[in-house]
Amino acid sequence: MRVAYQEVIQTLEEILFKNGFSEDRARLCAFLFAKASLEGVASHGLDRFPVFLEMIRKNLVHPDAESSLLDSYGVFERWNGNLGPGPLNAHQCMDRAIHLSKEFGVGIVALQNTNHWMRAGNYGWQAAEAGCIAICFTNTKPNMPAWGGSEPRLGNNPLVIAIPRSKGHVVLDMAMSQFSYGKLKTYLREGKDMPFDAGFDMNGNLTKSPESVISNELALPIGLWKGAGLSLLLDMLATILSGGNPTFQVGESGEESGLSQVFICLDAEKLGIMDWSDQKLDQIIGDLKSSLTFGDKEIRYPGENNMKTSEENMQNGVTVDDKIWKSIIEEL
Amino acid sequence: MRVAYQEVIQTLEEILFKNGFSEDRARLCAFLFAKASLEGVASHGLDRFPVFLEMIRKNLVHPDAESSLLDSYGVFERWNGNLGPGPLNAHQCMDRAIHLSKEFGVGIVALQNTNHWMRAGNYGWQAAEAGCIAICFTNTKPNMPAWGGSEPRLGNNPLVIAIPRSKGHVVLDMAMSQFSYGKLKTYLREGKDMPFDAGFDMNGNLTKSPESVISNELALPIGLWKGAGLSLLLDMLATILSGGNPTFQVGESGEESGLSQVFICLDAEKLGIMDWSDQKLDQIIGDLKSSLTFGDKEIRYPGENNMKTSEENMQNGVTVDDKIWKSIIEEL
Repeated sequence: MRVAYQEVIQTLEEILFKNGFSEDRARLCAFLFAKASLEGVASHGLDRFPVFLEMIRKNLVHPDAESSLLDSYGVFERWNGNLGPGPLNAHQCMDRAIHLSKEFGVGIVALQNTNHWMRAGNYGWQAAEAGCIAICFTNTKPNMPAWGGSEPRLGNNPLVIAIPRSKGHVVLDMAMSQFSYGKLKTYLREGKDMPFDAGFDMNGNLTKSPESVISNELALPIGLWKGAGLSLLLDMLATILSGGNPTFQVGESGEESGLSQVFICLDAEKLGIMDWSDQKLDQIIGDLKSSLTFGDKEIRYPGENNMKTSEENMQNGVTVDDKIWKSIIEEL
Repeated sequence: MRVAYQEVIQTLEEILFKNGFSEDRARLCAFLFAKASLEGVASHGLDRFPVFLEMIRKNLVHPDAESSLLDSYGVFERWNGNLGPGPLNAHQCMDRAIHLSKEFGVGIVALQNTNHWMRAGNYGWQAAEAGCIAICFTNTKPNMPAWGGSEPRLGNNPLVIAIPRSKGHVVLDMAMSQFSYGKLKTYLREGKDMPFDAGFDMNGNLTKSPESVISNELALPIGLWKGAGLSLLLDMLATILSGGNPTFQVGESGEESGLSQVFICLDAEKLGIMDWSDQKLDQIIGDLKSSLTFGDKEIRYPGENNMKTSEENMQNGVTVDDKIWKSIIEEL
């Protein structure tokens, strides 16, 4: 079904307010959930909202906990998320990184002891809209094997790179697993194999079977040993820069709480790249789109679809899963 | 065959000196080639040395050109490589990033108009040995397709992440293609298929055939659309931060020259992470290595093999390809 964007925000806001959020924080958190669905990432927007409320009720996410500054070294700051709502902590830390970059050209914030930030890309868009280049990443609970391993030890540790551009920001939002468990479950429900190798079976062979990957918790790292290595290094960076938990400790409780994240910003104006960045980005995208293709595939740049989906959903209402929306409405 | 490490360095140094390098620069450049082979990456060490000399003779690499500062914004600097030797330019810019990070906690250097830096990992080891966390990357000529594309448009844009650690630095050095063209050619010579999907055939299907991938120049981006996206964003970042050439322009001349690179450093001591970083890294590596495995595979962390190979080669001599060494000796 379709629900008007403003109605989505107001509904979520009201529910969050009833669940211990202050008015301001309820509004911002509702916006971040709604924005994900608006831009076509319902899996990390409205679809997650019921799980988010459950995390609050389990006392894993503390609605009124605000992140606090631990250390400040000019261009670099370390923050404690105090187990507050992940989206609010992440938004605040990206905001700090933006402010630092406006002052120093570069700003980096490392955040410990936070919760799932839901849609990673949100914080990339936030930076790009403020005229900043951004790189941010988070660790997660273990959900992928090490290269050669037969049990989950690595997180799929989403990585975002965002670049501001007048004709539409470029925002890459990718986890280190080839497919999310959400996508695997969708194919499983539909009784279909994944279109590409998605993980390992119980003998360590590559498989497209969502059932096999889900039951073994052996999702495929992108590029096999390469994505496994990248996931490991992102976890190490997030852990030592923030002083927080690594993936394996996040996994120990059985719940995904107490994460570590990093937010890096570079201010385009302060670093003098405004003179050429739009032109160079347009040229790169132009070259990409002029490529010959197999069949009638259209080549798109990261973020392009989000913008189109957003415009369409803003006009016609946000597409929401009927069951999910019903369960959300019941919380009012 | 095996050649003593010092003999390798002295040989290369003498040849570089004969080819227009000053004494100091010949020594450093020789060291960077030798170090790659010493640590088991001959493909980007001695094996490339004859090609490097060829680039000098073609006047694409200017031995006496030094990189020069274009813009300075405190924590961030922009340099022009003036088409000098790629390894020397990269080493100098990482050195600048290290120095900036010792002053500000963070240092970022963007470099335009440089040449192939040979082994990417060298600059990660350089930073880690100076006590710095580093992220660096380069663009390349086009050698991978966009997602859906049927011709090379993206570079394989190597990315390095390095983390200093008392018991052995962790250094990830990975290109965005699943296999290098060097590796593909090795399998082709041996008449073997690649062990995993390596690229696309002329119909756009995944293939393990090195012949097909090489002839179509359609190497597989790691994680399919994901690595294609990451490659694109790394190219965009390197291009706009440095003000230099994007991959598609590097490709226009048919030669790989005039590249763009970025060097990011964070000083571990300055950012106050020394109190916990060794312990946390050891715990993460300990957890990784304790994973159950398929068969008798050993789980290794990025950089572990390089260190072992280096120790072994330091004792017994650096393994060098007979033909390559012969052709190098002839340059004396």
